[in-house]
Amino acid sequence: MKTFITEYRVIYGDCDPFDVVYYGRYFDLFERGRTEMFRDLGLPYREIADQGIYTPVIEAGCTYIQSARYDDLLLIETRIGQIGRARIRFDYSIYRKNPHTLLAEGFTVHAFVNNQRKILRVPPEVIHVVKGLTE
Amino acid sequence: MKTFITEYRVIYGDCDPFDVVYYGRYFDLFERGRTEMFRDLGLPYREIADQGIYTPVIEAGCTYIQSARYDDLLLIETRIGQIGRARIRFDYSIYRKNPHTLLAEGFTVHAFVNNQRKILRVPPEVIHVVKGLTE
Amino acid sequence: MKTFITEYRVIYGDCDPFDVVYYGRYFDLFERGRTEMFRDLGLPYREIADQGIYTPVIEAGCTYIQSARYDDLLLIETRIGQIGRARIRFDYSIYRKNPHTLLAEGFTVHAFVNNQRKILRVPPEVIHVVKGLTE
Amino acid sequence: MKTFITEYRVIYGDCDPFDVVYYGRYFDLFERGRTEMFRDLGLPYREIADQGIYTPVIEAGCTYIQSARYDDLLLIETRIGQIGRARIRFDYSIYRKNPHTLLAEGFTVHAFVNNQRKILRVPPEVIHVVKGLTE
Repeated sequence: MKTFITEYRVIYGDCDPFDVVYYGRYFDLFERGRTEMFRDLGLPYREIADQGIYTPVIEAGCTYIQSARYDDLLLIETRIGQIGRARIRFDYSIYRKNPHTLLAEGFTVHAFVNNQRKILRVPPEVIHVVKGLTE
Repeated sequence: MKTFITEYRVIYGDCDPFDVVYYGRYFDLFERGRTEMFRDLGLPYREIADQGIYTPVIEAGCTYIQSARYDDLLLIETRIGQIGRARIRFDYSIYRKNPHTLLAEGFTVHAFVNNQRKILRVPPEVIHVVKGLTE
Repeated sequence: MKTFITEYRVIYGDCDPFDVVYYGRYFDLFERGRTEMFRDLGLPYREIADQGIYTPVIEAGCTYIQSARYDDLLLIETRIGQIGRARIRFDYSIYRKNPHTLLAEGFTVHAFVNNQRKILRVPPEVIHVVKGLTE
Repeated sequence: MKTFITEYRVIYGDCDPFDVVYYGRYFDLFERGRTEMFRDLGLPYREIADQGIYTPVIEAGCTYIQSARYDDLLLIETRIGQIGRARIRFDYSIYRKNPHTLLAEGFTVHAFVNNQRKILRVPPEVIHVVKGLTE
Protein backbone atom coordinates (compact mmCIF):
# COMPACT_ATOMS: atom_id res chain seq x y z
CA MET A 1 0.00 0.00 0.00
CA LYS A 2 1.22 3.46 -0.89
CA THR A 3 1.53 5.97 1.97
CA PHE A 4 2.20 9.70 2.07
CA ILE A 5 4.22 11.50 4.73
CA THR A 6 3.96 15.12 5.84
CA GLU A 7 5.97 16.76 8.60
CA TYR A 8 4.55 19.06 11.24
CA ARG A 9 6.25 20.89 14.12
CA VAL A 10 4.23 21.13 17.36
CA ILE A 11 3.83 24.65 18.83
CA TYR A 12 2.60 25.72 22.30
CA GLY A 13 -0.71 26.67 20.70
CA ASP A 14 -1.30 22.96 19.92
CA CYS A 15 -0.61 21.79 23.49
CA ASP A 16 -2.69 21.64 26.64
CA PRO A 17 -1.67 22.10 30.30
CA PHE A 18 -0.34 18.53 30.40
CA ASP A 19 2.35 19.61 27.96
CA VAL A 20 1.00 17.36 25.22
CA VAL A 21 -0.88 18.01 21.99
CA TYR A 22 -4.58 18.49 22.80
CA TYR A 23 -6.56 15.45 21.67
CA GLY A 24 -8.76 17.47 19.30
CA ARG A 25 -5.77 18.90 17.41
CA TYR A 26 -4.96 15.46 15.95
CA PHE A 27 -7.90 15.96 13.58
CA ASP A 28 -6.18 19.07 12.23
CA LEU A 29 -3.12 16.88 11.61
CA PHE A 30 -5.28 14.40 9.73
CA GLU A 31 -6.59 17.19 7.47
CA ARG A 32 -3.01 18.29 6.86
CA GLY A 33 -2.11 14.72 5.92
CA ARG A 34 -4.91 14.11 3.42
CA THR A 35 -4.45 17.56 1.84
CA GLU A 36 -0.78 16.91 1.18
CA MET A 37 -1.55 13.41 -0.09
CA PHE A 38 -3.91 14.82 -2.72
CA ARG A 39 -1.37 17.50 -3.64
CA ASP A 40 1.27 14.79 -4.10
CA LEU A 41 -1.18 12.87 -6.28
CA GLY A 42 -1.58 15.92 -8.53
CA LEU A 43 -5.16 16.70 -7.50
CA PRO A 44 -5.11 19.53 -4.91
CA TYR A 45 -8.20 19.69 -2.71
CA ARG A 46 -8.68 23.26 -3.84
CA GLU A 47 -9.29 22.06 -7.40
CA ILE A 48 -12.01 19.72 -6.16
CA ALA A 49 -13.58 22.54 -4.11
CA ASP A 50 -13.35 24.90 -7.11
CA GLN A 51 -15.69 22.53 -8.97
CA GLY A 52 -18.27 23.02 -6.25
CA ILE A 53 -17.64 19.58 -4.75
CA TYR A 54 -17.23 19.37 -0.99
CA THR A 55 -16.01 16.47 1.07
CA PRO A 56 -17.56 16.72 4.54
CA VAL A 57 -16.31 14.37 7.22
CA ILE A 58 -19.10 12.01 8.26
CA GLU A 59 -17.10 9.98 10.75
CA ALA A 60 -13.75 10.36 12.47
CA GLY A 61 -11.83 8.62 15.21
CA CYS A 62 -8.46 8.45 16.89
CA THR A 63 -6.63 6.06 19.21
CA TYR A 64 -3.97 7.78 21.31
CA ILE A 65 -0.95 5.60 22.06
CA GLN A 66 1.71 8.02 23.28
CA SER A 67 1.55 11.77 23.69
CA ALA A 68 2.92 14.18 21.13
CA ARG A 69 4.81 16.88 23.02
CA TYR A 70 5.79 20.49 22.53
CA ASP A 71 8.43 21.00 19.82
CA ASP A 72 8.12 17.42 18.53
CA LEU A 73 8.61 17.06 14.81
CA LEU A 74 5.71 14.82 13.79
CA LEU A 75 5.28 12.60 10.75
CA ILE A 76 1.72 12.39 9.48
CA GLU A 77 1.29 9.22 7.43
CA THR A 78 -1.83 9.09 5.27
CA ARG A 79 -3.28 6.11 3.42
CA ILE A 80 -6.45 5.46 1.45
CA GLY A 81 -8.48 3.17 3.65
CA GLN A 82 -11.46 2.29 1.50
CA ILE A 83 -13.29 3.70 -1.51
CA GLY A 84 -17.02 3.20 -1.72
CA ARG A 85 -19.51 4.48 -4.28
CA ALA A 86 -20.27 7.62 -2.30
CA ARG A 87 -17.60 7.76 0.35
CA ILE A 88 -13.91 7.43 0.93
CA ARG A 89 -11.98 6.54 4.06
CA PHE A 90 -8.50 7.74 4.98
CA ASP A 91 -6.29 6.13 7.62
CA TYR A 92 -3.59 8.04 9.47
CA SER A 93 -0.65 7.23 11.67
CA ILE A 94 1.07 9.96 13.64
CA TYR A 95 4.72 9.40 14.54
CA ARG A 96 7.35 11.32 16.45
CA LYS A 97 10.27 11.55 14.04
CA ASN A 98 13.16 11.25 16.53
CA PRO A 99 13.21 8.75 18.01
CA HIS A 100 10.72 7.21 15.58
CA THR A 101 7.67 6.40 17.73
CA LEU A 102 4.05 5.68 16.89
CA LEU A 103 1.88 8.17 18.78
CA ALA A 104 -1.65 7.82 17.38
CA GLU A 105 -3.75 6.14 14.74
CA GLY A 106 -6.91 7.55 13.27
CA PHE A 107 -9.32 7.68 10.38
CA THR A 108 -11.80 9.95 8.64
CA VAL A 109 -14.70 8.98 6.37
CA HIS A 110 -15.81 11.58 3.81
CA ALA A 111 -18.89 12.01 1.68
CA PHE A 112 -18.99 14.06 -1.51
CA VAL A 113 -21.67 16.74 -1.82
CA ASN A 114 -22.45 19.59 -4.20
CA ASN A 115 -23.31 23.23 -3.38
CA GLN A 116 -26.84 22.21 -2.41
CA ARG A 117 -25.48 19.54 -0.03
CA LYS A 118 -26.82 16.81 -2.31
CA ILE A 119 -24.78 13.62 -1.94
CA LEU A 120 -22.69 12.70 -4.97
CA ARG A 121 -20.78 9.61 -6.04
CA VAL A 122 -17.03 9.76 -5.57
CA PRO A 123 -15.90 11.92 -8.54
CA PRO A 124 -14.11 10.01 -11.36
CA GLU A 125 -10.95 12.15 -11.09
CA VAL A 126 -10.67 11.23 -7.41
CA ILE A 127 -11.10 7.54 -8.21
CA HIS A 128 -8.56 7.94 -10.99
CA VAL A 129 -5.81 9.31 -8.75
CA VAL A 130 -6.40 7.04 -5.76
CA LYS A 131 -6.90 3.86 -7.81
CA GLY A 132 -4.31 1.35 -6.92
CA LEU A 133 -3.34 3.07 -3.66
CA THR A 134 -5.31 0.61 -1.57
CA GLU A 135 -3.54 -2.46 -2.87
CA MET B 1 -29.79 7.13 32.40
CA LYS B 2 -28.90 10.55 33.70
CA THR B 3 -27.66 13.11 31.18
CA PHE B 4 -26.11 16.56 31.54
CA ILE B 5 -26.68 19.46 29.18
CA THR B 6 -24.38 22.42 28.48
CA GLU B 7 -25.05 25.21 26.00
CA TYR B 8 -22.47 26.59 23.58
CA ARG B 9 -22.76 29.38 21.00
CA VAL B 10 -20.85 28.83 17.73
CA ILE B 11 -18.49 31.66 16.67
CA TYR B 12 -16.74 32.24 13.31
CA GLY B 13 -13.53 30.98 14.89
CA ASP B 14 -15.14 27.52 15.20
CA CYS B 15 -16.26 27.37 11.55
CA ASP B 16 -14.50 26.45 8.34
CA PRO B 17 -14.95 27.82 4.79
CA PHE B 18 -18.05 25.65 4.32
CA ASP B 19 -19.76 27.76 6.96
CA VAL B 20 -20.00 24.84 9.39
CA VAL B 21 -18.19 23.94 12.59
CA TYR B 22 -14.83 22.36 11.72
CA TYR B 23 -14.96 18.63 12.42
CA GLY B 24 -12.09 18.76 14.91
CA ARG B 25 -13.81 21.39 17.07
CA TYR B 26 -16.46 18.85 18.16
CA PHE B 27 -13.85 17.35 20.46
CA ASP B 28 -13.56 20.71 22.22
CA LEU B 29 -17.35 20.55 22.69
CA PHE B 30 -17.01 17.09 24.20
CA GLU B 31 -14.45 18.38 26.72
CA ARG B 32 -16.81 21.23 27.58
CA GLY B 33 -19.60 18.70 28.13
CA ARG B 34 -17.72 16.35 30.45
CA THR B 35 -16.21 19.25 32.42
CA GLU B 36 -19.63 20.70 33.14
CA MET B 37 -21.00 17.26 33.97
CA PHE B 38 -18.36 16.76 36.67
CA ARG B 39 -18.98 20.28 37.99
CA ASP B 40 -22.70 19.49 38.22
CA LEU B 41 -21.82 16.30 40.06
CA GLY B 42 -19.87 18.31 42.64
CA LEU B 43 -16.44 17.05 41.57
CA PRO B 44 -14.80 19.69 39.34
CA TYR B 45 -12.07 18.37 37.04
CA ARG B 46 -9.70 20.89 38.57
CA GLU B 47 -10.00 19.16 41.93
CA ILE B 48 -9.03 15.85 40.34
CA ALA B 49 -6.08 17.51 38.57
CA ASP B 50 -5.04 19.24 41.81
CA GLN B 51 -4.50 15.76 43.31
CA GLY B 52 -1.99 15.03 40.57
CA ILE B 53 -4.38 12.74 38.72
CA TYR B 54 -4.72 13.23 34.98
CA THR B 55 -7.29 11.76 32.64
CA PRO B 56 -5.75 11.53 29.18
CA VAL B 57 -7.99 10.59 26.28
CA ILE B 58 -6.98 7.21 24.90
CA GLU B 59 -9.68 6.95 22.26
CA ALA B 60 -12.18 9.35 20.72
CA GLY B 61 -14.64 9.33 17.87
CA CYS B 62 -17.47 11.26 16.29
CA THR B 63 -20.24 10.60 13.77
CA TYR B 64 -21.40 13.75 11.99
CA ILE B 65 -25.09 13.73 11.11
CA GLN B 66 -25.91 17.34 10.28
CA SER B 67 -23.65 20.37 10.28
CA ALA B 68 -23.52 22.83 13.16
CA ARG B 69 -23.50 26.30 11.65
CA TYR B 70 -22.31 29.77 12.57
CA ASP B 71 -24.29 31.36 15.42
CA ASP B 72 -26.09 28.10 16.29
CA LEU B 73 -26.84 27.65 19.95
CA LEU B 74 -25.74 24.07 20.61
CA LEU B 75 -26.73 21.67 23.35
CA ILE B 76 -23.94 19.34 24.47
CA GLU B 77 -25.44 16.27 26.12
CA THR B 78 -23.01 14.15 28.14
CA ARG B 79 -23.54 10.69 29.58
CA ILE B 80 -21.33 8.16 31.36
CA GLY B 81 -20.88 5.40 28.82
CA GLN B 82 -18.98 2.77 30.76
CA ILE B 83 -16.78 2.52 33.84
CA GLY B 84 -13.97 -0.01 33.86
CA ARG B 85 -11.28 -0.62 36.47
CA ALA B 86 -8.83 1.73 34.83
CA ARG B 87 -10.86 3.66 32.32
CA ILE B 88 -14.08 5.53 31.82
CA ARG B 89 -16.08 6.24 28.69
CA PHE B 90 -18.25 9.29 28.04
CA ASP B 91 -20.89 9.51 25.32
CA TYR B 92 -21.98 12.80 23.79
CA SER B 93 -24.81 14.03 21.61
CA ILE B 94 -24.62 17.48 20.04
CA TYR B 95 -27.93 19.16 19.20
CA ARG B 96 -28.94 22.44 17.60
CA LYS B 97 -31.32 23.98 20.13
CA ASN B 98 -33.79 25.65 17.75
CA PRO B 99 -35.19 23.79 15.98
CA HIS B 100 -34.08 20.86 18.13
CA THR B 101 -31.92 18.74 15.80
CA LEU B 102 -29.37 16.00 16.43
CA LEU B 103 -26.10 17.05 14.76
CA ALA B 104 -23.45 14.63 15.98
CA GLU B 105 -22.74 11.76 18.34
CA GLY B 106 -19.40 10.98 19.83
CA PHE B 107 -17.42 9.40 22.63
CA THR B 108 -14.16 9.66 24.53
CA VAL B 109 -12.38 6.98 26.58
CA HIS B 110 -10.10 8.19 29.38
CA ALA B 111 -7.37 6.58 31.44
CA PHE B 112 -6.26 7.84 34.83
CA VAL B 113 -2.55 8.49 35.35
CA ASN B 114 -0.38 10.13 38.00
CA ASN B 115 2.39 12.71 37.55
CA GLN B 116 4.78 10.01 36.37
CA ARG B 117 2.26 8.87 33.72
CA LYS B 118 1.75 5.60 35.63
CA ILE B 119 -1.72 4.17 34.99
CA LEU B 120 -4.07 4.25 37.97
CA ARG B 121 -7.40 2.67 38.78
CA VAL B 122 -10.43 4.94 38.45
CA PRO B 123 -10.27 7.01 41.68
CA PRO B 124 -12.91 6.11 44.30
CA GLU B 125 -14.34 9.66 44.40
CA VAL B 126 -14.94 9.49 40.65
CA ILE B 127 -16.66 6.13 41.02
CA HIS B 128 -18.65 7.57 43.90
CA VAL B 129 -20.08 10.50 41.95
CA VAL B 130 -20.75 8.66 38.70
CA LYS B 131 -22.17 5.52 40.34
CA GLY B 132 -25.72 5.00 39.28
CA LEU B 133 -25.44 7.34 36.27
CA THR B 134 -25.09 4.48 33.83
CA GLU B 135 -28.31 2.80 34.83
CA MET C 1 -20.59 54.42 28.10
CA LYS C 2 -22.67 51.30 27.65
CA THR C 3 -20.90 47.96 27.98
CA PHE C 4 -21.94 44.38 27.27
CA ILE C 5 -20.89 41.35 29.27
CA THR C 6 -20.65 37.73 28.12
CA GLU C 7 -19.46 34.80 30.21
CA TYR C 8 -17.09 32.12 29.01
CA ARG C 9 -15.70 29.05 30.80
CA VAL C 10 -12.07 28.14 30.00
CA ILE C 11 -11.44 24.54 28.88
CA TYR C 12 -8.12 22.62 28.55
CA GLY C 13 -8.35 23.11 24.79
CA ASP C 14 -7.91 26.87 25.33
CA CYS C 15 -4.81 26.50 27.52
CA ASP C 16 -1.14 26.01 26.78
CA PRO C 17 1.53 24.05 28.71
CA PHE C 18 1.90 26.95 31.19
CA ASP C 19 -1.62 26.21 32.36
CA VAL C 20 -2.94 29.53 31.06
CA VAL C 21 -5.13 30.51 28.13
CA TYR C 22 -2.97 30.67 24.98
CA TYR C 23 -2.43 34.30 23.97
CA GLY C 24 -4.02 33.83 20.54
CA ARG C 25 -7.27 32.49 22.03
CA TYR C 26 -8.11 35.93 23.49
CA PHE C 27 -9.06 37.01 19.98
CA ASP C 28 -11.69 34.26 19.94
CA LEU C 29 -13.01 35.75 23.19
CA PHE C 30 -13.17 39.18 21.56
CA GLU C 31 -15.25 37.74 18.68
CA ARG C 32 -17.56 36.14 21.21
CA GLY C 33 -17.93 39.49 22.98
CA ARG C 34 -18.80 41.58 19.93
CA THR C 35 -21.16 38.90 18.59
CA GLU C 36 -23.15 38.86 21.81
CA MET C 37 -23.13 42.66 21.96
CA PHE C 38 -24.78 42.88 18.53
CA ARG C 39 -27.27 40.17 19.49
CA ASP C 40 -28.16 42.18 22.63
CA LEU C 41 -28.59 45.24 20.43
CA GLY C 42 -31.10 43.36 18.27
CA LEU C 43 -28.87 43.13 15.20
CA PRO C 44 -27.26 39.67 15.10
CA TYR C 45 -24.07 39.47 13.05
CA ARG C 46 -25.70 36.74 10.99
CA GLU C 47 -28.28 39.23 9.72
CA ILE C 48 -25.49 41.54 8.57
CA ALA C 49 -23.70 38.64 6.86
CA ASP C 50 -26.97 37.49 5.26
CA GLN C 51 -27.08 40.84 3.41
CA GLY C 52 -23.70 40.03 1.88
CA ILE C 53 -21.86 42.47 4.14
CA TYR C 54 -18.70 41.25 5.81
CA THR C 55 -16.73 42.89 8.58
CA PRO C 56 -13.09 41.77 8.29
CA VAL C 57 -10.71 42.66 11.08
CA ILE C 58 -8.08 45.09 9.81
CA GLU C 59 -6.27 45.59 13.09
CA ALA C 60 -6.27 43.83 16.46
CA GLY C 61 -4.28 44.00 19.65
CA CYS C 62 -4.17 42.77 23.21
CA THR C 63 -2.35 43.69 26.41
CA TYR C 64 -2.04 40.76 28.84
CA ILE C 65 -2.15 41.77 32.49
CA GLN C 66 -2.78 38.54 34.37
CA SER C 67 -3.21 35.02 33.02
CA ALA C 68 -6.59 33.41 32.53
CA ARG C 69 -6.36 29.87 33.85
CA TYR C 70 -8.05 26.53 33.29
CA ASP C 71 -11.63 26.40 34.53
CA ASP C 72 -11.83 30.18 35.09
CA LEU C 73 -15.20 31.71 34.44
CA LEU C 74 -14.36 34.78 32.36
CA LEU C 75 -16.33 37.95 31.77
CA ILE C 76 -15.88 39.44 28.31
CA GLU C 77 -16.77 43.14 28.40
CA THR C 78 -17.30 44.75 25.00
CA ARG C 79 -17.62 48.45 24.18
CA ILE C 80 -17.87 50.45 20.97
CA GLY C 81 -14.53 52.22 20.73
CA GLN C 82 -14.97 54.48 17.73
CA ILE C 83 -17.16 54.70 14.65
CA GLY C 84 -15.65 56.11 11.48
CA ARG C 85 -17.16 56.41 7.98
CA ALA C 86 -15.83 53.05 6.87
CA ARG C 87 -14.66 51.36 10.04
CA ILE C 88 -15.61 50.60 13.58
CA ARG C 89 -13.48 49.86 16.60
CA PHE C 90 -14.43 47.63 19.53
CA ASP C 91 -12.68 47.65 22.89
CA TYR C 92 -12.63 44.64 25.20
CA SER C 93 -11.75 43.90 28.78
CA ILE C 94 -11.39 40.32 29.97
CA TYR C 95 -12.01 39.66 33.66
CA ARG C 96 -11.90 36.61 35.90
CA LYS C 97 -15.29 36.58 37.60
CA ASN C 98 -14.27 35.27 41.04
CA PRO C 99 -12.40 37.02 42.47
CA HIS C 100 -13.11 39.86 40.02
CA THR C 101 -9.76 40.55 38.34
CA LEU C 102 -8.81 42.36 35.15
CA LEU C 103 -6.82 39.93 32.98
CA ALA C 104 -6.47 41.57 29.57
CA GLU C 105 -7.52 44.52 27.46
CA GLY C 106 -7.79 44.50 23.70
CA PHE C 107 -9.33 45.98 20.60
CA THR C 108 -10.34 45.11 17.06
CA VAL C 109 -10.89 47.47 14.11
CA HIS C 110 -13.26 46.27 11.39
CA ALA C 111 -13.94 47.37 7.82
CA PHE C 112 -17.17 46.63 5.98
CA VAL C 113 -16.93 44.95 2.58
CA ASN C 114 -19.35 43.38 0.10
CA ASN C 115 -19.11 40.00 -1.64
CA GLN C 116 -16.54 41.40 -4.08
CA ARG C 117 -14.40 42.65 -1.17
CA LYS C 118 -15.19 46.28 -2.13
CA ILE C 119 -15.00 48.55 0.92
CA LEU C 120 -18.34 49.96 2.07
CA ARG C 121 -19.35 52.68 4.48
CA VAL C 122 -20.56 51.50 7.87
CA PRO C 123 -24.15 50.32 7.14
CA PRO C 124 -26.92 52.64 8.45
CA GLU C 125 -28.50 49.87 10.56
CA VAL C 126 -25.18 49.34 12.34
CA ILE C 127 -24.84 53.09 12.99
CA HIS C 128 -28.45 53.10 14.17
CA VAL C 129 -27.97 50.41 16.83
CA VAL C 130 -24.58 51.54 18.10
CA LYS C 131 -25.41 55.29 18.10
CA GLY C 132 -25.17 56.66 21.57
CA LEU C 133 -23.12 53.71 22.87
CA THR C 134 -19.85 55.64 22.66
CA GLU C 135 -21.00 58.50 24.87
CA MET D 1 18.72 43.47 10.03
CA LYS D 2 18.68 39.68 10.06
CA THR D 3 15.34 38.00 9.40
CA PHE D 4 14.20 34.37 9.66
CA ILE D 5 11.71 32.71 7.35
CA THR D 6 9.44 29.74 8.09
CA GLU D 7 6.88 28.25 5.71
CA TYR D 8 3.35 27.24 6.69
CA ARG D 9 0.56 25.69 4.62
CA VAL D 10 -2.99 26.90 5.41
CA ILE D 11 -5.57 24.16 6.13
CA TYR D 12 -9.38 24.41 6.36
CA GLY D 13 -9.06 24.25 10.13
CA ASP D 14 -7.30 27.65 10.04
CA CYS D 15 -9.99 29.34 7.93
CA ASP D 16 -13.34 30.91 8.75
CA PRO D 17 -16.56 31.03 6.71
CA PHE D 18 -15.16 33.89 4.60
CA ASP D 19 -12.63 31.43 3.24
CA VAL D 20 -9.73 33.28 4.84
CA VAL D 21 -7.47 32.53 7.79
CA TYR D 22 -9.28 33.50 11.02
CA TYR D 23 -7.73 36.66 12.47
CA GLY D 24 -6.80 34.99 15.76
CA ARG D 25 -4.79 32.25 14.02
CA TYR D 26 -2.11 34.76 12.93
CA PHE D 27 -0.86 34.70 16.52
CA ASP D 28 -0.21 30.97 16.14
CA LEU D 29 1.82 31.82 13.04
CA PHE D 30 3.81 34.35 15.05
CA GLU D 31 4.63 31.69 17.65
CA ARG D 32 5.74 29.37 14.87
CA GLY D 33 7.98 32.11 13.49
CA ARG D 34 9.75 32.99 16.74
CA THR D 35 10.18 29.31 17.68
CA GLU D 36 11.91 28.54 14.41
CA MET D 37 14.03 31.69 14.68
CA PHE D 38 15.38 30.56 18.06
CA ARG D 39 15.98 27.06 16.70
CA ASP D 40 17.95 28.57 13.79
CA LEU D 41 19.94 30.59 16.30
CA GLY D 42 20.90 27.39 18.14
CA LEU D 43 18.80 28.09 21.25
CA PRO D 44 15.54 26.13 21.01
CA TYR D 45 12.69 27.52 23.13
CA ARG D 46 12.45 24.12 24.81
CA GLU D 47 15.94 24.56 26.27
CA ILE D 48 14.89 27.89 27.77
CA ALA D 49 11.72 26.32 29.20
CA ASP D 50 13.74 23.37 30.54
CA GLN D 51 15.62 25.84 32.75
CA GLY D 52 12.31 26.90 34.28
CA ILE D 53 12.25 30.20 32.41
CA TYR D 54 8.99 31.14 30.71
CA THR D 55 8.37 33.91 28.22
CA PRO D 56 4.74 35.01 28.52
CA VAL D 57 3.36 37.40 25.92
CA ILE D 58 2.51 40.71 27.56
CA GLU D 59 1.39 42.52 24.43
CA ALA D 60 0.54 41.47 20.88
CA GLY D 61 -0.92 43.08 17.80
CA CYS D 62 -1.56 42.54 14.11
CA THR D 63 -2.44 44.68 11.11
CA TYR D 64 -4.25 42.73 8.40
CA ILE D 65 -3.47 43.93 4.88
CA GLN D 66 -4.70 41.13 2.61
CA SER D 67 -6.35 37.86 3.51
CA ALA D 68 -4.47 34.58 3.70
CA ARG D 69 -6.61 31.95 1.98
CA TYR D 70 -7.10 28.22 2.13
CA ASP D 71 -4.14 26.24 0.75
CA ASP D 72 -1.86 29.30 0.60
CA LEU D 73 1.78 28.59 1.30
CA LEU D 74 2.72 31.34 3.75
CA LEU D 75 6.10 32.77 4.64
CA ILE D 76 6.45 33.84 8.26
CA GLU D 77 9.24 36.39 8.56
CA THR D 78 10.47 37.02 12.11
CA ARG D 79 12.78 39.78 13.34
CA ILE D 80 13.98 40.92 16.75
CA GLY D 81 12.21 44.21 17.31
CA GLN D 82 13.74 45.47 20.52
CA ILE D 83 15.58 44.07 23.54
CA GLY D 84 14.99 45.72 26.90
CA ARG D 85 16.29 44.73 30.32
CA ALA D 86 13.28 42.58 31.12
CA ARG D 87 11.46 42.21 27.82
CA ILE D 88 11.96 41.44 24.18
CA ARG D 89 9.87 42.40 21.16
CA PHE D 90 9.52 40.37 17.98
CA ASP D 91 8.19 41.74 14.71
CA TYR D 92 6.56 39.56 12.09
CA SER D 93 5.54 39.87 8.45
CA ILE D 94 3.28 37.26 6.90
CA TYR D 95 3.55 36.79 3.13
CA ARG D 96 1.83 34.63 0.55
CA LYS D 97 4.68 32.89 -1.26
CA ASN D 98 3.22 32.81 -4.79
CA PRO D 99 2.70 35.45 -5.94
CA HIS D 100 4.80 37.09 -3.22
CA THR D 101 2.36 39.34 -1.35
CA LEU D 102 2.46 40.99 2.05
CA LEU D 103 -0.61 39.87 4.01
CA ALA D 104 -0.12 41.00 7.59
CA GLU D 105 2.33 42.60 10.00
CA GLY D 106 2.41 42.00 13.71
CA PHE D 107 4.41 41.99 16.89
CA THR D 108 4.64 40.30 20.29
CA VAL D 109 6.31 41.59 23.47
CA HIS D 110 7.51 38.97 25.95
CA ALA D 111 8.55 39.07 29.58
CA PHE D 112 10.75 36.44 31.22
CA VAL D 113 9.50 34.81 34.40
CA ASN D 114 10.54 31.89 36.60
CA ASN D 115 8.41 29.05 37.98
CA GLN D 116 6.95 31.37 40.62
CA ARG D 117 5.99 33.93 37.96
CA LYS D 118 8.62 36.32 39.28
CA ILE D 119 9.85 38.67 36.53
CA LEU D 120 13.44 38.09 35.44
CA ARG D 121 15.91 40.02 33.33
CA VAL D 122 16.36 38.76 29.77
CA PRO D 123 18.65 35.73 30.25
CA PRO D 124 22.27 36.23 29.11
CA GLU D 125 22.12 33.29 26.66
CA VAL D 126 19.13 34.92 24.93
CA ILE D 127 20.96 38.26 24.72
CA HIS D 128 23.99 36.39 23.42
CA VAL D 129 22.19 34.74 20.50
CA VAL D 130 20.06 37.72 19.49
CA LYS D 131 22.84 40.31 19.88
CA GLY D 132 23.54 41.97 16.60
CA LEU D 133 20.23 40.86 15.05
CA THR D 134 18.61 44.25 15.58
CA GLU D 135 21.23 46.19 13.63
